[in-house]
Amino acid sequence: MARKRIAILGSTGSIGRQTIDVVSQLPDHFEIVALAAGRNTKLLAEQVAALKPRYAFADARDAALDQAVEATGAAWVPMTEMAVAPEVDVVLAGTGSSAGLLPTIAALEAGKPVAIANKEALVMAGHLIRRAMVAGGAELRPVDSEHSAIWQCLWGEAGHGIRRIMLTASGGALRELDRAQLAAVTPEQALNHPTWTMGDKITVDCATLMNKGMETIEAMWLFDVPIERVQVLLHRESIVHSLVELSDGSVKAQLGVPDMRLPIQCALAYPDRIPEPPAPALDLAAAGQLNFGTPDVDRFPCLGLAMESGRLGGTYPAVMAAADEVAVGRFMAREVGFLEIPAIVETVMAKHDSTVDPDLEAVLAADSWARAQAEAVPAKASV
Amino acid sequence: MARKRIAILGSTGSIGRQTIDVVSQLPDHFEIVALAAGRNTKLLAEQVAALKPRYAFADARDAALDQAVEATGAAWVPMTEMAVAPEVDVVLAGTGSSAGLLPTIAALEAGKPVAIANKEALVMAGHLIRRAMVAGGAELRPVDSEHSAIWQCLWGEAGHGIRRIMLTASGGALRELDRAQLAAVTPEQALNHPTWTMGDKITVDCATLMNKGMETIEAMWLFDVPIERVQVLLHRESIVHSLVELSDGSVKAQLGVPDMRLPIQCALAYPDRIPEPPAPALDLAAAGQLNFGTPDVDRFPCLGLAMESGRLGGTYPAVMAAADEVAVGRFMAREVGFLEIPAIVETVMAKHDSTVDPDLEAVLAADSWARAQAEAVPAKASV
Repeated sequence: MARKRIAILGSTGSIGRQTIDVVSQLPDHFEIVALAAGRNTKLLAEQVAALKPRYAFADARDAALDQAVEATGAAWVPMTEMAVAPEVDVVLAGTGSSAGLLPTIAALEAGKPVAIANKEALVMAGHLIRRAMVAGGAELRPVDSEHSAIWQCLWGEAGHGIRRIMLTASGGALRELDRAQLAAVTPEQALNHPTWTMGDKITVDCATLMNKGMETIEAMWLFDVPIERVQVLLHRESIVHSLVELSDGSVKAQLGVPDMRLPIQCALAYPDRIPEPPAPALDLAAAGQLNFGTPDVDRFPCLGLAMESGRLGGTYPAVMAAADEVAVGRFMAREVGFLEIPAIVETVMAKHDSTVDPDLEAVLAADSWARAQAEAVPAKASV
Repeated sequence: MARKRIAILGSTGSIGRQTIDVVSQLPDHFEIVALAAGRNTKLLAEQVAALKPRYAFADARDAALDQAVEATGAAWVPMTEMAVAPEVDVVLAGTGSSAGLLPTIAALEAGKPVAIANKEALVMAGHLIRRAMVAGGAELRPVDSEHSAIWQCLWGEAGHGIRRIMLTASGGALRELDRAQLAAVTPEQALNHPTWTMGDKITVDCATLMNKGMETIEAMWLFDVPIERVQVLLHRESIVHSLVELSDGSVKAQLGVPDMRLPIQCALAYPDRIPEPPAPALDLAAAGQLNFGTPDVDRFPCLGLAMESGRLGGTYPAVMAAADEVAVGRFMAREVGFLEIPAIVETVMAKHDSTVDPDLEAVLAADSWARAQAEAVPAKASV
């Protein structure tokens, strides 16, 4: 089997770093040929020096990065260009925010398989990503553990139809708190995720259940099902990564210890499985007990807001996601309280008028509009 | 899609009756063309009158059955003949005991897919069944809920390799009892299965964990893995029907309410799924909790004996299964106590000398020998 050549968009983020970890363990299977980052020039300089990619890019530059790029002879090209380079076999879209959207669309239109961890792109413009996938005859391979689980369960089930998708949710760091306690939550508390180690923004989104709400929209686009068929199930152990009910009622699930390296490896290796487990084996007898329940949308309104935006369609999901990103930023900066995150999202969504089947320009305009709106929502006096 | 024409071997047993139930709900998909039973002539006469198969057979006859057969014009042919009849598309092997072995082999050699619920046949002569399957280029489709689960999880995983099979076990009716309590168990107690409704023999085998032991041997033959890769996991809710760990460590599971009609429908419909759930939908949030543990081989020695016979190979599994069938019969007749079931199996296995790669004659000879030996083991004075 020829080595697969990987482009990592978002190489300094949590998914990007874990992808480098997976690839470094499997030098016979994978080779990194492109690295792109945002503003973490220090780490990107180290990655470029160590991995010697053919292409590199970042939103910022400094002397150390320039030196690494020059020393390795890497070509400095923007993400949309490296994503379609002939030397790239698979694109790992691991950027946060909307930065990954254009290169993802470009890669799919060029027929490149995209391993997508960039849920913001799918949420804001899932319809455009799906269209690019169909146009390019390309594969979209999920990297999120939940969607990877469903995807793996659907191998060999082509054409069988999906009755229901059950996305599991750990419930986040704050699942046991009541509304009064939630109002007083600090960024430090929200960042203390019970089962997964991830980036800051997504960890706060886990605590609000916004992350799970966005995942229902992702599932809708990745698996081509109406959002009404996507159900969220609380599962505090994060061992059952998600489940799918097929047309005859049979339910399949994928399980494992919480470790992103397995879904990353799956997405890079598909349609093969590489017989080198990247994570410890699951020991269900030792786990003993798996718990399941229904999420409380009253305490965690972001879940309902996100699903509502998915139902409404158009630019609503983009507006919802952009408003959330700003609101989380304001929460992390201690400008607003934890429960103001859903309040800001709801306020911005309520002001929005969507277009039908928006093109990329309309999506990006809605995104900018929502960011400005979300910045402008006044913080409550009590914070 | 043309209707699939089904032969049911063992139509009056629990699996046979449930197969008729599934088929009757899906008249556009299935048609019953052959029915064979053991000694329940009364029920077979009713089934023949209602379903009008082209072929019928039983080990016994009486006036009512003769009349039904004559009235419908069914041809009276033995199971090995109906299993290979040109009008048969799928054979459901649902007999208990070794009666299903020869027709299963005949069907596979003729290239007919066999939906196999007859675990005794796989246990006693799995190597011959597998050989027949390969020779005929036929499919062997599991019907046991555990093996159906693994089979479904392996769709789309061809060539990926199996690291571990995890068979779940409810633990049977007596899972909470200690050895002293087990010694005093009555047939009525042993027949009170917590989650599944099945025939008597298999329900007692569930209580001794012999059924699970036999299933490890079945799994070995169905999925072509060494028995060392088959692990038994206690799971009292019988919702996770079994799990499989693939080469990269990813674990897949199939779940559902405990209802044999789903695995039966799966096995008949393969490679399709029929969008008509035969059982109620799974509600994991309502189930709330799933428990897992390790079985206690000291209290339930049949599990260890069965797995040991699988490791030894040759005629040991046939001897183990035959001795168990006799021992269970003697227990049901109140001749011996519950803990004498494993004692009888162990005694007979210890006396046995196996041959390597036994042919059918050698397997059947070992079966007869073991039955006689098991009948001859004296009951303990205390019973």
